Amino acid sequence: MPDQPPPSSDFTGVPLRGERALIARLAGELRATPGGVPFGDDLAGIGPEAGALLWSTDMLMDGVDFRSAAHAWRDIGRKAMAVNLSDCAACATVPVAALCAVALSDDLSMDDAVELFRGIRDCGEAFGCPLVGGDTNSWPQPTVVAVTVIARPDGARAPVLRGGARPGDGIYLSGRVGGSLLGRHLHPRPRVREALEINRRLQPRAMIDISDGLVIDLWHICEASGCGAEIDAGALDAVIHPDAEAMARQTGRSARDHALYDGEDFELIVVVPEEAPEADIHELGLLPLGRMLAAPVLRLRDGHGQATALEIRGWEHFRGADARG
Amino acid sequence: MPDQPPPSSDFTGVPLRGERALIARLAGELRATPGGVPFGDDLAGIGPEAGALLWSTDMLMDGVDFRSAAHAWRDIGRKAMAVNLSDCAACATVPVAALCAVALSDDLSMDDAVELFRGIRDCGEAFGCPLVGGDTNSWPQPTVVAVTVIARPDGARAPVLRGGARPGDGIYLSGRVGGSLLGRHLHPRPRVREALEINRRLQPRAMIDISDGLVIDLWHICEASGCGAEIDAGALDAVIHPDAEAMARQTGRSARDHALYDGEDFELIVVVPEEAPEADIHELGLLPLGRMLAAPVLRLRDGHGQATALEIRGWEHFRGADARG
Repeated sequence: MPDQPPPSSDFTGVPLRGERALIARLAGELRATPGGVPFGDDLAGIGPEAGALLWSTDMLMDGVDFRSAAHAWRDIGRKAMAVNLSDCAACATVPVAALCAVALSDDLSMDDAVELFRGIRDCGEAFGCPLVGGDTNSWPQPTVVAVTVIARPDGARAPVLRGGARPGDGIYLSGRVGGSLLGRHLHPRPRVREALEINRRLQPRAMIDISDGLVIDLWHICEASGCGAEIDAGALDAVIHPDAEAMARQTGRSARDHALYDGEDFELIVVVPEEAPEADIHELGLLPLGRMLAAPVLRLRDGHGQATALEIRGWEHFRGADARG
Repeated sequence: MPDQPPPSSDFTGVPLRGERALIARLAGELRATPGGVPFGDDLAGIGPEAGALLWSTDMLMDGVDFRSAAHAWRDIGRKAMAVNLSDCAACATVPVAALCAVALSDDLSMDDAVELFRGIRDCGEAFGCPLVGGDTNSWPQPTVVAVTVIARPDGARAPVLRGGARPGDGIYLSGRVGGSLLGRHLHPRPRVREALEINRRLQPRAMIDISDGLVIDLWHICEASGCGAEIDAGALDAVIHPDAEAMARQTGRSARDHALYDGEDFELIVVVPEEAPEADIHELGLLPLGRMLAAPVLRLRDGHGQATALEIRGWEHFRGADARG
């Protein structure tokens, strides 16, 4: 673990509140990590008895992760499956099958409910991941959808986890980021096939999918790997999605800020050894971003070599009651 | 399938609404049934690639399946795990590991959240089923907890499904039922070990755990097996739980009615061939209830041989919007 906290971090000292703090407390109590996968990675190991399978679950809530008043139920279903497939991609694993548990709002129509399941099914089937069962409930509150996906390793290749990055490793993105709230967040394209190809050709040291934001998810790699990271400002400018530019015009924030802190891009952060072949990196369409550092910091480096600390924040659940004390 | 609808059934003709109707519509679209497990059974097969593993998910919602104002969070956590372990028991399978996804209400304290997870963990560990990961969210609505459990078959023994019952088979219960709302519903004792022993000694034709009520869950076996069932009135009186008697004094309904229609007992309905050895049945503590019939009916038979149809109803989610139409 880093022996020096990063500047401007939510996570200096003892974390008191928020999803990460809760997970940190739980990780101390729930030390069962079958298959050697640390608690909190994108996928969990299932257990020695179950071979090398991994699994993941993600819960989406109406009003938080989607808005049923504005979004089509089939799109909502697709997203519920896609975020799980993105977790499979983050580990370069092959999705096998999915379960879905729902708490449907009482005012949902039967047709809406079927559309929701069709979206889940369609997205899964596009990635060879059939929906094989689940649990159907209803209640007088907004709809909640929880999908669980099982994945297997890609042949003999071990899953790629968050904790393998080393100082000097190169950091790349599978695509441009920022501004997903303009609509892309509802149509995530899980990078399952890309991740498998990346793993076959580059054997990455670490990967993660960007769900909470580029900075916070890169920081997850830093924390799990016990190092820091440096983003080149010029490289950052080259990975800014046009939607981030468009949002910047609406919000008054910079496009860089949207690229660094907007969540739900579902692109991959890929960390590869310094000596990874340039030609492969290019052919895979990976965009350079920066490099891992020995010091446990996260910083932005401009063209003159000047580095400034990046504020480490992103979307995080379960912070509300903290503020209220 | 039965060619004659049962009397007084919700399910005569075309089902229009409700969880079962939704599942029926989905089952037509989601025909993927790896491992030959029909959609809608207690566990689902994971896929041919994943060997013989099975899995199950159950979602509990505050105000529906528990009341956080009245119940301890550790008990709520235990229940969230126990209902999944009960699904493992229903199939006579061995739990392997669990995931948990939560939408925590914003006003939940960190200590409450940790207690919830401890309850999930404690109940799982008591059955060799570690909690290995999950997804933590928060929102301004009541808390939702979804646990997913993976199970494996017990050695070479195939999982026991709902659809294997035959006319003439004997119907037994693993314990007395009714009145669980007086408190037992919060402390379910999943019959995992009992189910494995039952499977080893009796090779049951079909099993299910009683979550929605004795009548409706027995009817699930009837539907899946294409037959009917007959409950002996004297046998029914012998399986009435004292809590059903106590509730009857409060509600004015009969104790029989509570035994037949109350949910969340989590006892097993066990269907065995007529020739199953009496001594084993006795040693396993199984309580006789009745027998399977060829006709697709569900009826109560009194001491004089007179049979009356049982109304087929039980707890069912997702019926609200139907009434509103």
